[in-house]
Amino acid sequence: MLGYAFMGKAHSNAFKKIPYITWPPPLEPRLVGIAGRNVEAVEEAARRYGYEYATGDWRRLVEDESIGLFDNGGPNSLHAEPTIAAAQAGKHVVCEKPLGRDATESYEIWQAVAATGVKHLCAFNYRFVPAVRLAREMIDAGELGEVRHFRARYLQDWGDDPSLDTWRFDVEAAGSGAIGDLMTHVVDLARFLNGEPESVQGFAHTFLPGRKVDDAAEAAVEFANGSVGTLEATRFAHGRRNALQWEINGTKSSLAFDMERLNELQVFRADGDRARGFKTVLVSEADHPFWSYWWPPGHIIGWGDTFVHELHHMLDAIANDTGVAPYGATFEDGYRASEICDAIVRSGQSGTRERISFRT
Amino acid sequence: MLGYAFMGKAHSNAFKKIPYITWPPPLEPRLVGIAGRNVEAVEEAARRYGYEYATGDWRRLVEDESIGLFDNGGPNSLHAEPTIAAAQAGKHVVCEKPLGRDATESYEIWQAVAATGVKHLCAFNYRFVPAVRLAREMIDAGELGEVRHFRARYLQDWGDDPSLDTWRFDVEAAGSGAIGDLMTHVVDLARFLNGEPESVQGFAHTFLPGRKVDDAAEAAVEFANGSVGTLEATRFAHGRRNALQWEINGTKSSLAFDMERLNELQVFRADGDRARGFKTVLVSEADHPFWSYWWPPGHIIGWGDTFVHELHHMLDAIANDTGVAPYGATFEDGYRASEICDAIVRSGQSGTRERISFRT
Amino acid sequence: MLGYAFMGKAHSNAFKKIPYITWPPPLEPRLVGIAGRNVEAVEEAARRYGYEYATGDWRRLVEDESIGLFDNGGPNSLHAEPTIAAAQAGKHVVCEKPLGRDATESYEIWQAVAATGVKHLCAFNYRFVPAVRLAREMIDAGELGEVRHFRARYLQDWGDDPSLDTWRFDVEAAGSGAIGDLMTHVVDLARFLNGEPESVQGFAHTFLPGRKVDDAAEAAVEFANGSVGTLEATRFAHGRRNALQWEINGTKSSLAFDMERLNELQVFRADGDRARGFKTVLVSEADHPFWSYWWPPGHIIGWGDTFVHELHHMLDAIANDTGVAPYGATFEDGYRASEICDAIVRSGQSGTRERISFRT
Amino acid sequence: MLGYAFMGKAHSNAFKKIPYITWPPPLEPRLVGIAGRNVEAVEEAARRYGYEYATGDWRRLVEDESIGLFDNGGPNSLHAEPTIAAAQAGKHVVCEKPLGRDATESYEIWQAVAATGVKHLCAFNYRFVPAVRLAREMIDAGELGEVRHFRARYLQDWGDDPSLDTWRFDVEAAGSGAIGDLMTHVVDLARFLNGEPESVQGFAHTFLPGRKVDDAAEAAVEFANGSVGTLEATRFAHGRRNALQWEINGTKSSLAFDMERLNELQVFRADGDRARGFKTVLVSEADHPFWSYWWPPGHIIGWGDTFVHELHHMLDAIANDTGVAPYGATFEDGYRASEICDAIVRSGQSGTRERISFRT
Repeated sequence: MLGYAFMGKAHSNAFKKIPYITWPPPLEPRLVGIAGRNVEAVEEAARRYGYEYATGDWRRLVEDESIGLFDNGGPNSLHAEPTIAAAQAGKHVVCEKPLGRDATESYEIWQAVAATGVKHLCAFNYRFVPAVRLAREMIDAGELGEVRHFRARYLQDWGDDPSLDTWRFDVEAAGSGAIGDLMTHVVDLARFLNGEPESVQGFAHTFLPGRKVDDAAEAAVEFANGSVGTLEATRFAHGRRNALQWEINGTKSSLAFDMERLNELQVFRADGDRARGFKTVLVSEADHPFWSYWWPPGHIIGWGDTFVHELHHMLDAIANDTGVAPYGATFEDGYRASEICDAIVRSGQSGTRERISFRT
Repeated sequence: MLGYAFMGKAHSNAFKKIPYITWPPPLEPRLVGIAGRNVEAVEEAARRYGYEYATGDWRRLVEDESIGLFDNGGPNSLHAEPTIAAAQAGKHVVCEKPLGRDATESYEIWQAVAATGVKHLCAFNYRFVPAVRLAREMIDAGELGEVRHFRARYLQDWGDDPSLDTWRFDVEAAGSGAIGDLMTHVVDLARFLNGEPESVQGFAHTFLPGRKVDDAAEAAVEFANGSVGTLEATRFAHGRRNALQWEINGTKSSLAFDMERLNELQVFRADGDRARGFKTVLVSEADHPFWSYWWPPGHIIGWGDTFVHELHHMLDAIANDTGVAPYGATFEDGYRASEICDAIVRSGQSGTRERISFRT
Repeated sequence: MLGYAFMGKAHSNAFKKIPYITWPPPLEPRLVGIAGRNVEAVEEAARRYGYEYATGDWRRLVEDESIGLFDNGGPNSLHAEPTIAAAQAGKHVVCEKPLGRDATESYEIWQAVAATGVKHLCAFNYRFVPAVRLAREMIDAGELGEVRHFRARYLQDWGDDPSLDTWRFDVEAAGSGAIGDLMTHVVDLARFLNGEPESVQGFAHTFLPGRKVDDAAEAAVEFANGSVGTLEATRFAHGRRNALQWEINGTKSSLAFDMERLNELQVFRADGDRARGFKTVLVSEADHPFWSYWWPPGHIIGWGDTFVHELHHMLDAIANDTGVAPYGATFEDGYRASEICDAIVRSGQSGTRERISFRT
Repeated sequence: MLGYAFMGKAHSNAFKKIPYITWPPPLEPRLVGIAGRNVEAVEEAARRYGYEYATGDWRRLVEDESIGLFDNGGPNSLHAEPTIAAAQAGKHVVCEKPLGRDATESYEIWQAVAATGVKHLCAFNYRFVPAVRLAREMIDAGELGEVRHFRARYLQDWGDDPSLDTWRFDVEAAGSGAIGDLMTHVVDLARFLNGEPESVQGFAHTFLPGRKVDDAAEAAVEFANGSVGTLEATRFAHGRRNALQWEINGTKSSLAFDMERLNELQVFRADGDRARGFKTVLVSEADHPFWSYWWPPGHIIGWGDTFVHELHHMLDAIANDTGVAPYGATFEDGYRASEICDAIVRSGQSGTRERISFRT
């Protein structure tokens, strides 16, 4: 594990829960080593989460032959080098989003890692929310019919304070602001649920004088499947704490979701029932995605549990040599999210519609 | 009254309720004449709503010297000529939205009518929803602080049927589709609550082959006050019947609204209360806008009642020779809404950001 | 019309809207006279609502042979004598709830009026909310299956103020407090949707020292159809303005409702759909109850409009000599509501379960 | 640990998460042994959750001197003997609710265990929902003023199937049905938030012929603090999966909660703000109860995490020799819940109001 803070905690918690929550587990993770720059903090994290050793140098992890999976939860500027090195050392790799700080870096990471043949997962954990997976399954089964609209926004509100000082506002460390942090999630879910965008028109925006990264981004979007909509990400929406909200309207059904109520999916079916409306579906039934691991219906799970599903999926892919795709995001997905984000930035700079095209 | 269908009914109902609901009324409307193309239907409407006479020719209304207010609820193609003629005959005028079928026609109507000196109201009735007015009053009082975001969308779902055939799909009669019908409302509320947009990037879109007007429109928007957001209008959002939803995020408060629950305003205050969240405010208190006309708190009003407020405002402006603005939309406001809508269309055609500028 | 305040306004508004909203109307009401104790106020009401005359003495209305329908919206203590007198003078009668101040008085009114052969309606207007009628139609069609539970509560919050002084706190004028004002509505909807209660266990309660009427009532209830639940009414639920909330659980479906969102019905269907949950049904479709009178789907109506439906129903019963029951509440229904309310009071006094039995 | 099924999983998960989620933990639990009747199943559970050994006989755990805390998650009929034996062997004890199968048995457990001087916790885990604890803190701080109403209901829907066959329908094993399973939670939260009930009037009810335990219970209740309300528990509310809903109305604030959205608290403050309504508070702020263990604001937790808080509280009480009360439920609280539940049953049998009194 590289990183001991927010993501280090979220991933470590998942590795510790997988062996007994997803029973029988595909693999029993052994928490070998954890790395980070602040040696004191990383040593405490090792004690806390039960890693066998702590180190101030991630290279030690890369060189450790007993490690089979390298999980990168460090700042964005530390994604490329350690992840590539680990893959080249033959380790499977997980990397937090955004994969790289821009499309170019993301592409390089993807290409370098893909060349090694290891499994790679870009940690877009929201694909592993049961309600999101249920939506995907309904869409795959044709329950929505032809899709007309996809709109999504990720609203948070912690950024509107000039005194804040974290690596997330540092261009070198983060690459971007709301774009890399939030819009990548929006764009990944758009692709996961609705396929590739074809064009974007919009912009990134910085509110605070002196802030070096973007605070928000806005776009109108066209998809290859003929649907249209809007995309938004911001850290300046007061009152919205973690509101990744999306809605998809099809000719046969519509779905809506809000991460602040992540156990719920809103489902409208155009089935001719006189009682017509959106259902509030508590996604916690025995036949719902991931639910066999958990509790009886109605006993909801938490945000942290999405990582249990995600890393279980990765362990399962390793154990059974199956694909990370389509349910998990590969590094190619990580690259594509960056490509779309960059297109929004470019659209804002040039004032023109940006057609999306991907390198292969 | 010109028009006897949806809008004819809504306006007639308002004129009949004003004399006793808004007590004492500024003026007691006398329902003199009603015009429409289908003579049989307009005669039935006259009987139904109590107009003294029906006519197949709106010119009779214009020539009737006993008429002091001409209310145009006809199809969009019938907005310009009768409205201008009525104003030139010295009558005050109300005209349904969109004012004209495009910015050019809207501008002509505004200019011709303004030159006569009569009062003019473009019937953006959603300004007269109590929750919307309360929002405006809170904004005017500085309760939101600096505004960061304004996002709005008007979602309906009746258009996704190729067999539909109304004047609303006829380019000559309607001028546009979701743009003139729904996006004008979105844009007018954006201006009413958040001031002038500075630029738009987006497009209008038609889903159904053979459909002559747009079915939806999407845009990213920048406002003169420094806020940014998205704008959307569609007739293809299955499950959304009349969902004009907007949200505005400020440094001190945020507000959110959905026309399907038009009696409610969602209010977030960044006031440091440990119990932090959006309030569901039932806008029906004695000190809320328009509420002195109605019932005790919690006894909600309907969509149709917004016209009571709107036309009362017009009668009051006439009776007391006060301005239709700022709470009512003038024909200048009608023109400006068209200008912004046209900019979205042009942005889609050119693929470039459109700066908004208004003729004076 | 007897009464010019809250109910006088609500009923007058309905009589004025019926002729054009419910088209063609069964009868065209002529607003002949309005009575009330405060002569100045009643004269203003006559001007406001368009009654031909005002009077300080309701007997003038009873004696007026041009009046065919006597509508009693006065204080509870004025229900019995004028209503009976009007019926005995051959007029059809509408009387606000509660019919009498207790079961005995309610029974007397019912018996005296029924003996005359006129039509009688006890104005439980909430039967005429579209969502409530839709619920009733679904229940009648067997869509709920066997009913397990009915629970309802009417929560308001204006009573928690010792300085308040209205006839509603006067035992002689009102008979009771929350019981007659709110619990009668709860009990009438219970009967309308779920049939007769068989027993109640509970009590009425007064919070404020010196208050002469009850402030709240609570009960556990058994119904003849085998279902069980709770009933509650209060004027002391801070934050709830007009929250008449009920829920009914059947083996095949469940329904839930809140008067503060009176255009919505929550519908759960145990239909095996993997997407399982309560639908938020906006009761505003062309095939929904009463909706042919109104607007396109999603354009909601207000609390006041329930009286349009109710009094239209009465006019229709008069015009076509059809029954007020089963959709309208007769005076027998008014009596039965009082009988159940009295049983709750007695249960509180005696501390024992009260079996419900009705006089015939 | 006694019990390896639903509660065995919930408690084991908590013991495994405490050491790293609540950092630094008060104690590091060692999972020594797990007992259960089905030896094969309990051996699998030992492997799954990491217990050092499995046993078919709970007496082995009692005799194991290396065990300091005995956690009883077995069927209700196995609460008394093992729990008492463990306490008498000097172990601290946790016991699932209901403490005993009726008040008599609960009293005996409490008395026998209290006599030993060990720490005892009755596992009413809903006290440890952050929103519930926040409510308690607001009440303790006087933010509600004088309380007028407390109403609560626990609605589930899995019981309406005659073919179901579990120990929960066995009188010998369970003691009761919805009463012991659900009403105890309702009653415990009523006491936790609003203090002691003074009287109940109501009944338990069985819907299905042949079912040996109650399916539902309904009651009207008076509290010692002068407030009144209703209490309900049922397994027959179709569409409600885990809906423990309560509302408390005070003179200064009201609070409402639904376990299906356990991260949210509805808060109304009568503070004179013109924007008046219930707030939806996402209880996930840094200064909210338990939140220092978890994630950034808006990243919600799950039902299972309430056990982390609960058992952490118990370990903390052991480590620091502090009281389990007032935030944790002691066995006296377990007994009192049973006493109130029994009173509801007796009220139904006798048809009379039951005054609540507790043995000491």
